[in-house]
Amino acid sequence: MKVIDNATLPHAQLPGLDHVTLAGASMGLHKLSVWRQTIAPGGATPPHFHACEEVVLVSAGTGAIHMASGSHRFAAGTTLVIRPLEEHQIVNTGNTPIELVGIFSATPVGVFKPGGEALDLPWSS
Amino acid sequence: MKVIDNATLPHAQLPGLDHVTLAGASMGLHKLSVWRQTIAPGGATPPHFHACEEVVLVSAGTGAIHMASGSHRFAAGTTLVIRPLEEHQIVNTGNTPIELVGIFSATPVGVFKPGGEALDLPWSS
Repeated sequence: MKVIDNATLPHAQLPGLDHVTLAGASMGLHKLSVWRQTIAPGGATPPHFHACEEVVLVSAGTGAIHMASGSHRFAAGTTLVIRPLEEHQIVNTGNTPIELVGIFSATPVGVFKPGGEALDLPWSS
Repeated sequence: MKVIDNATLPHAQLPGLDHVTLAGASMGLHKLSVWRQTIAPGGATPPHFHACEEVVLVSAGTGAIHMASGSHRFAAGTTLVIRPLEEHQIVNTGNTPIELVGIFSATPVGVFKPGGEALDLPWSS
């Protein structure tokens, strides 16, 4: 059992994106990772995929998720369910930050470019 | 890939507790469940445990989590990491609702009373 004050957790950044690992292997987990991210207006995640399941909880902002099969718009109060190996990119299409929680069925989380090469990220889980 | 408007999802209740399954087996997942719950002032979950890992994200309110090893207080902005088989009960000790998201490394989620008997709940995942 661990009680974690989120304010004490380190932040990491990509351009237009702020990241906090809320829970993962470093907290003793074996099968879950939980990330909190803020995407600035005009910002986006890199296009990528994971080998595990992902659920994204969107609590603020508006955006689109681009998939090989097409794009889907979303707003605050939306849950995105992404299957393993589905390539995706989340883009902020609005004028306010997107606040989201990304939940993964693995820890650490493998993140891969569309070609399959590992995506090097400035955080761990 | 699924885009779910949370406002369309069904609610279920226990005394003092409102529940929404945001993601789980019914959305095509195999290894993740995500629940959103609101616990009223004075309300509590039943004492229970799971066979899987759990992460609880507390976004509003103040409370305590009672474990066999002791009790831990928490407030909004806290992440709780609960190991498989750890008995726990979440109690709202404040004057405002607790808003939380419960994340599980299994779907459906098995919920058991401290003696090991399955806890019958009015929702599924």
